[in-house]
Amino acid sequence: MVIVMKPEATAEQLQEVISKIEELGYKPHVIYGTTRSVIGAVGDERGKFVLQSLEVMDGVESVIPILKPYKLASKEVKKEKSIIKVGNVSIGGKELIIIAGPCAIENEEQIINTAKAVKSMGAHILRGGAYKPRTSPYTFQGLGEEGLKLLKKAGEIANMPVVTEVVNPEHVDLVCEYVDILQIGTRNSQNFELLKRVGQTDKPVILKRGMSMTIKEWLMSAEYILSEGNRNVILCERGIRTFETATRNTLDLSAIAVLKEETHLPVIVDPSHATGFAKYVPCMAYAAVAAGTDGLMIEVHPQPEKAFSDGPQSLNFNSFGKMVEKLRQFASIAEKI
Amino acid sequence: MVIVMKPEATAEQLQEVISKIEELGYKPHVIYGTTRSVIGAVGDERGKFVLQSLEVMDGVESVIPILKPYKLASKEVKKEKSIIKVGNVSIGGKELIIIAGPCAIENEEQIINTAKAVKSMGAHILRGGAYKPRTSPYTFQGLGEEGLKLLKKAGEIANMPVVTEVVNPEHVDLVCEYVDILQIGTRNSQNFELLKRVGQTDKPVILKRGMSMTIKEWLMSAEYILSEGNRNVILCERGIRTFETATRNTLDLSAIAVLKEETHLPVIVDPSHATGFAKYVPCMAYAAVAAGTDGLMIEVHPQPEKAFSDGPQSLNFNSFGKMVEKLRQFASIAEKI
Amino acid sequence: MVIVMKPEATAEQLQEVISKIEELGYKPHVIYGTTRSVIGAVGDERGKFVLQSLEVMDGVESVIPILKPYKLASKEVKKEKSIIKVGNVSIGGKELIIIAGPCAIENEEQIINTAKAVKSMGAHILRGGAYKPRTSPYTFQGLGEEGLKLLKKAGEIANMPVVTEVVNPEHVDLVCEYVDILQIGTRNSQNFELLKRVGQTDKPVILKRGMSMTIKEWLMSAEYILSEGNRNVILCERGIRTFETATRNTLDLSAIAVLKEETHLPVIVDPSHATGFAKYVPCMAYAAVAAGTDGLMIEVHPQPEKAFSDGPQSLNFNSFGKMVEKLRQFASIAEKI
Amino acid sequence: MVIVMKPEATAEQLQEVISKIEELGYKPHVIYGTTRSVIGAVGDERGKFVLQSLEVMDGVESVIPILKPYKLASKEVKKEKSIIKVGNVSIGGKELIIIAGPCAIENEEQIINTAKAVKSMGAHILRGGAYKPRTSPYTFQGLGEEGLKLLKKAGEIANMPVVTEVVNPEHVDLVCEYVDILQIGTRNSQNFELLKRVGQTDKPVILKRGMSMTIKEWLMSAEYILSEGNRNVILCERGIRTFETATRNTLDLSAIAVLKEETHLPVIVDPSHATGFAKYVPCMAYAAVAAGTDGLMIEVHPQPEKAFSDGPQSLNFNSFGKMVEKLRQFASIAEKI
Repeated sequence: MVIVMKPEATAEQLQEVISKIEELGYKPHVIYGTTRSVIGAVGDERGKFVLQSLEVMDGVESVIPILKPYKLASKEVKKEKSIIKVGNVSIGGKELIIIAGPCAIENEEQIINTAKAVKSMGAHILRGGAYKPRTSPYTFQGLGEEGLKLLKKAGEIANMPVVTEVVNPEHVDLVCEYVDILQIGTRNSQNFELLKRVGQTDKPVILKRGMSMTIKEWLMSAEYILSEGNRNVILCERGIRTFETATRNTLDLSAIAVLKEETHLPVIVDPSHATGFAKYVPCMAYAAVAAGTDGLMIEVHPQPEKAFSDGPQSLNFNSFGKMVEKLRQFASIAEKI
Repeated sequence: MVIVMKPEATAEQLQEVISKIEELGYKPHVIYGTTRSVIGAVGDERGKFVLQSLEVMDGVESVIPILKPYKLASKEVKKEKSIIKVGNVSIGGKELIIIAGPCAIENEEQIINTAKAVKSMGAHILRGGAYKPRTSPYTFQGLGEEGLKLLKKAGEIANMPVVTEVVNPEHVDLVCEYVDILQIGTRNSQNFELLKRVGQTDKPVILKRGMSMTIKEWLMSAEYILSEGNRNVILCERGIRTFETATRNTLDLSAIAVLKEETHLPVIVDPSHATGFAKYVPCMAYAAVAAGTDGLMIEVHPQPEKAFSDGPQSLNFNSFGKMVEKLRQFASIAEKI
Repeated sequence: MVIVMKPEATAEQLQEVISKIEELGYKPHVIYGTTRSVIGAVGDERGKFVLQSLEVMDGVESVIPILKPYKLASKEVKKEKSIIKVGNVSIGGKELIIIAGPCAIENEEQIINTAKAVKSMGAHILRGGAYKPRTSPYTFQGLGEEGLKLLKKAGEIANMPVVTEVVNPEHVDLVCEYVDILQIGTRNSQNFELLKRVGQTDKPVILKRGMSMTIKEWLMSAEYILSEGNRNVILCERGIRTFETATRNTLDLSAIAVLKEETHLPVIVDPSHATGFAKYVPCMAYAAVAAGTDGLMIEVHPQPEKAFSDGPQSLNFNSFGKMVEKLRQFASIAEKI
Repeated sequence: MVIVMKPEATAEQLQEVISKIEELGYKPHVIYGTTRSVIGAVGDERGKFVLQSLEVMDGVESVIPILKPYKLASKEVKKEKSIIKVGNVSIGGKELIIIAGPCAIENEEQIINTAKAVKSMGAHILRGGAYKPRTSPYTFQGLGEEGLKLLKKAGEIANMPVVTEVVNPEHVDLVCEYVDILQIGTRNSQNFELLKRVGQTDKPVILKRGMSMTIKEWLMSAEYILSEGNRNVILCERGIRTFETATRNTLDLSAIAVLKEETHLPVIVDPSHATGFAKYVPCMAYAAVAAGTDGLMIEVHPQPEKAFSDGPQSLNFNSFGKMVEKLRQFASIAEKI
């Protein structure tokens, strides 16, 4: 880290900062400038309160971290890309993985029909929500365990791994009995208790980006899961909150490019929640593939106009099928199969 | 709600929308414009998926909600302001309530000394974190139950009610044994499982605003607590995430003015987390009082430079004392005592 | 527009609003709800102060516009897509148009070499800045008219139309003597005096999106140019300002999808300014093509490490060449040539 | 500045960076860490392209500036606060200065009546727009020179200095003939051509913050004016653009606290544009005073419901009078008179 002293800092203040740095186990290097001094402190600076205790000292203007705060998620620790296997499916490898299904599991017919349809059109993994974190307490909250059973059944019938969102540490064991992949939703992306708990399971985890989360914070949330021993984390970009209201969120596709520099973890994209409108989903799915995503998560519903949740952003079977065809073409240029 | 048809919508499409509106239990009123038709649907539109199912229909351009989505939090349902009592302290009444204490409880001496000091300087409620939701898994995570015991003891010694953050539904019962007020932090402001659980207790709840939460969404999160039966919700503005980096977050004091129009719930302000720097805290505390806040939540630490967490934004006893004196003067102009 | 009355509005207040609506030339339709009344006002509501004067009336809760505020930019007025011709180049048609060149024109050798290189690799239009709106007054501000001359010369040698940014209404005539396309930069996107002035020329105008501009406001800025008589406006997405700092701005590719619904004007993308790092440019260029952009604007410099401005985001000739090859492949899938 | 090398940087790459630093006129100090090296470069780093040319070099991970990019606006250059005099009025001194008047000058009666009324209630300076930068080309654009004449006349009658917005470099000379203070609006806050031009006059300039401008960028825009020789710049906070839509913008009052640390220039606040609703204006004006503002800019209109522009956010005479009374009380606590 680098400690910048104020121009008016005294020699005593500088000396106290140097002593403090040594006391904290770092090696200080002072650079005496014309208007102010700067101290380089060599050592592993992770553990933020150490930094902060320097910031409060007299004569200190600012403390600038140099190392990235994440370790296990970083490419410095693991250079080769992580490939995460679920059944026959590998996420992070050569193949573009498509996860499809309804926002909420509504009944047996709906989820089984969707499973069969999306499988036949090229999807690899079935998604469906059993616990729905809805903004309003007065809207449909999901079928709970009944939904998990239907999801498992549909996955078996269509021969696909299944993924569902988990919203409560107390549900984790139950959900693990039924599904192959756990999902952490955007609203729980800094629910650290939940992150730790899923980090203690052996299920792959799809970690959605928080609505106002920087990429750095996102990787720190991944670090919570990784540091509990679960190394199977898949990052999912789903749009961030900005001032623009023409779309539900603003899909940040440059996050794919940044993450490829920063982490070995696979990255997928959810254009359905990002845009909020079915008509914009294919365009953004194509763009995500061209940008280099490892996979896509798409909301598909047999009859979007009758969906209990998020109908406007769900594709019907027909649109989904057409989109997948074109996705494959883009994928081949992007060197995915 | 108002349904706006596309200019090119056919008479059949219009008729189908009308039928759907009736089927959903609303009364449709069509306004035939020169370029497009607009339908007013009279009825209680809360329950968002109803709206959304109309959006997907052919010929529909957009669906505009008219009623606010919250009920119990709204002034339409309860006109007089809610006053929430904890021991001798009333939040939302004539008095400006000051909640003070360290970010994290570190040891007995620290919390007891702080309790005595802030009490003697005019604070009403003692705060202290036992479970700390930290961005990094490698930083101090709080003392847990041991911290709760110390907090309770400090509150008893200084004769003050105490508040602490709860981060996991599984901890709620335990935390309730030790503290008088529960706090929901910004990262858990849409952790609906946790909101429901604290809604089932009889403890007052301080609900912090999420970092990227609109005021409307914030009131919907309050609605989760209220609708479980707990009517003692206190809203706490603590800064939102914007592009500005000179402060840790951007304190949105206009939220106080808006909330006074929208809700009967008391509103307090946390300038410590909002600004992230002790030097900016007093200024923003004064501003909050002038804007009409019902209370303040201030981080105070005996030695900020040695704090395990958030030292740079903590006041020491001396600065806290000076600030409270001036706060009282502003409060008297703002018609608070 | 729709006027929502407060629940407590009196019959007199409702009547006054109705009279005011009639006085303003609209036809009011009242819908009497159970808790409040809503008035639909049929007519062209563009001209915002009319709306606002209703908002101030007693008993009015809110006024909701229904029509889009732009006319000439809208697809309602002109359904077929605008194709803008400059020399042999058509923007908005079948071909993916590539605009390339340095951020700032530095000297004759630099601009002529760049022109020849990018032309040989497939670029259609040469860009180069002569007037640079820099955040700091102490950095290179551009060569001014001398730069315009060099740009024109380079365009002639390489047989390419040229584009440059104009920053001052007083410069417009001069700039028009030298270049084929005018560019309005992000910082001037609501400099209405400049917009009006370029609207009075017959040169095509590339209008960059403002850093914190909604798509609606962007189209209103286009409307300023269009309403002065110049119908040759090209919209350029270049990233918006958000809380994320890993990239210079957040490229909003969903804007392409939204604009294709809303306007007949061509849309291009500038991934160089959006990301701020050369290493992220190709990825985002590919994504833009897959999303359906009509063109790309790319910063290219013979030696980015010696550039006077924006070196870190400039591609060198080699990277540009490789990128264009791949761009063509993506374009063919996106049905561009 | 500090240059952070990549962990895998070679000794040759390090040496090349060192040579480059020397070539640029700085003195390099290398700190050899366990995983990477860091170089401190001592010298005045202002002039950003220098920094950027290092960023592009092989082996460099990042370049971190240490000095603030502004000079003349900074407290390092001028410690004592600037007090700006206009007629009898001093901005930045002991007195809380109130600037009041309509958004747009509409006719003689309106501006003269407003001038007299606000003067009698305690305002110091009269504001009124003659050139209105409106989002839509179809709304009222101001009276132009006719408006300037009326404003001057009203100022003379009420014996108050007057301020108006200037939007075009070509208008600056004309506007200077009529008014005492020039205003740069939020949409022109990075219109550097206009900033330079007003920097060449001897009139005080009120510089509004851009909607998505960091405080650092704002001070850089001030620097444009200052570096042309005009030292009379007054900064005006007027809200920034965020995701929140309950208010027109989000008033960032912590900017006052930050600016007092960073600059000697006076700071005022415009709560009218910030909130967009008259009902929220007094609250935010009180808060601004408590936070330490040097002045306020308030929209006042004889009949807000008939205003040509921004009626909903304008106070009528009565509300303005009541607000000023209370403002004075808050000011006395804030040690302003």
